[in-house]
Amino acid sequence: MKKANKKISAAIVIIGNEILSGRTQDINVSFLSKWLNDHGISVEEVRIIEDKEVSIVKTIKEVKDNFKYVFTTGGIGPTHDDITSKSVAKAFNLSCGYHKEAYNILEKYYEPGEFNEGRKKMAKIPDQAVLIYNPSSGAPGFIIENVFCLPGVPSILKSMVEGLKNKIIGGKKILSKTISVNTVESEIAKPLEGVQNKFKNIEIGSYPFFRLGKVGVAIVMRSTEPEQIEDCVKEIQSFIKQKKIKISRSE
Amino acid sequence: MKKANKKISAAIVIIGNEILSGRTQDINVSFLSKWLNDHGISVEEVRIIEDKEVSIVKTIKEVKDNFKYVFTTGGIGPTHDDITSKSVAKAFNLSCGYHKEAYNILEKYYEPGEFNEGRKKMAKIPDQAVLIYNPSSGAPGFIIENVFCLPGVPSILKSMVEGLKNKIIGGKKILSKTISVNTVESEIAKPLEGVQNKFKNIEIGSYPFFRLGKVGVAIVMRSTEPEQIEDCVKEIQSFIKQKKIKISRSE
Repeated sequence: MKKANKKISAAIVIIGNEILSGRTQDINVSFLSKWLNDHGISVEEVRIIEDKEVSIVKTIKEVKDNFKYVFTTGGIGPTHDDITSKSVAKAFNLSCGYHKEAYNILEKYYEPGEFNEGRKKMAKIPDQAVLIYNPSSGAPGFIIENVFCLPGVPSILKSMVEGLKNKIIGGKKILSKTISVNTVESEIAKPLEGVQNKFKNIEIGSYPFFRLGKVGVAIVMRSTEPEQIEDCVKEIQSFIKQKKIKISRSE
Repeated sequence: MKKANKKISAAIVIIGNEILSGRTQDINVSFLSKWLNDHGISVEEVRIIEDKEVSIVKTIKEVKDNFKYVFTTGGIGPTHDDITSKSVAKAFNLSCGYHKEAYNILEKYYEPGEFNEGRKKMAKIPDQAVLIYNPSSGAPGFIIENVFCLPGVPSILKSMVEGLKNKIIGGKKILSKTISVNTVESEIAKPLEGVQNKFKNIEIGSYPFFRLGKVGVAIVMRSTEPEQIEDCVKEIQSFIKQKKIKISRSE
C-alpha cells in the first residue's frame, strides 16, 4: 500500500469570552476546517481561550511551534477587549506600533475626520506582519510567521479567507466519504475495526445518529487517496451486506 | 468595591475528529458552558482534539492540573475510534478493565444474548471511577478525580448532565446582561474602556453585529454580583445617552 503524504497540520485558536460563556455559538471552526481540508491541510487541534493577554501569549507560543499553520479568530477590533494584535506580538517578542500600510488602508477607508482613536487602534500591528486584506469592513488581519490572525465575525472572516490561497502551501485535498447504515454501532464495531486495521492511511470514524425516530450510524472515511477510499468502501459494503444491514445513504 | 468571589474554573475537552474536520458542528460547548455558568463555574478554556491516545493523554494531563473541573465529550461508545476511557485512564496511570457496576448496568440494559463484545467495551472504565448515569441509552459516563467524561451525542449528554448537580461544588450563578446599541464599536471604544477600568470585577465584552442590514454593538456584562452589574449598566447608559446613541435592546 502506498504511504499517504505526511499530513500538513494546522491549529485554530478562537479568542473570545463570548464563545466560552456559551452566549455565542462558534461557526468559524467548521468553516475554516473545511476550507483548510480543501487545501490539503488538516486541523489537528482547536483551542478556545479567554480575551486575556496571558492566555493568548501562552497559547500562541505553544501552538506556533507544534503546528505548521495557526489561525486565530477574534480580538482585532477597536474596543478594550480586542487584544489579539498586542498579545500575538508579545508571543513573538515583537513591538506593536502602527503598521504603515494598515494605517494607510484605514485612513483611506474612513471619511475625513472619522478616523478616530478606536479605528487607529486597528492599525496597531507589528511592522513585520504581512496584511490580510478585508474586502468587507476595511480593518485588515495579519500574518506573523506561521500565525494568521483573522476577525471573529463569520461573514467578515469568510470574505478574507479567499485572499489567503497564495499565502499557504497546502497538499492534496482531503477527501471524505460517508456511508450511513440502519444499525447500531455495537453491531458493526468488530468488522469496522478490522477494516481500520487494514487501511491504516484512512481515518475511519463511526458516529451514531438519531433521525426521524430511527437510529443509525454514519461511517466516515477521510484520506487524500481516492482509490484507497474506494477500496475501503468496498470492504465496508461487503460486511454490511453480509450482516444484512441496510445502507440508508452514501455520499 | 467588594471583591468578587474567586472564579471556579473549568475546561472542556471535545474529543472528536468529526468536529475537527468540520463535518459536525459542535453544540456541546455552548450547552455545557451555560449549564456551568448557572452553577457558578466559569469555562476558561476549550480544546478540541483528535481521537488519538497521545493527544488525549497529553491534553488531560495538562488540563486536569490547571482547572478545577474538566469535562470531556465524545469517544465513549463501542467502536474502534472510541478511546476516551483507556486514554483518560492512562493520563491518571490507572488500569482500565471492566468496571463492575457499569458491566451490571449494561448487562441489564440489553436483552439476553445482545450484550455483545462492542457493548461490553463500554464497561471498560477504571475501577476507581464514579459513574455518571445515562437515562437515554444505558452506557454510563464516569468521573475520575476532577475529570468528568460524557458522550458526544448532544441529546444523550444533556440527559446525563442533570445528574451531576451533586457531584460539583459550584459558586454564585454567573449573571449576564446585554445592552445592544445602534452604533459601531469605534464610537464607544473609549468610554467603554473607562467603564471597564472602573468595574474590574465585571467582564465587559463588545460584539459588533449585523441585523436586517443595520450595524450594531452588543455590550455584554458578566459577573456574579447583580448590584455591580446594575451600577455598570447605569454608567454605560449614561455615556450612550450623552452620545445620542439609540439602545435597540436591553436584556
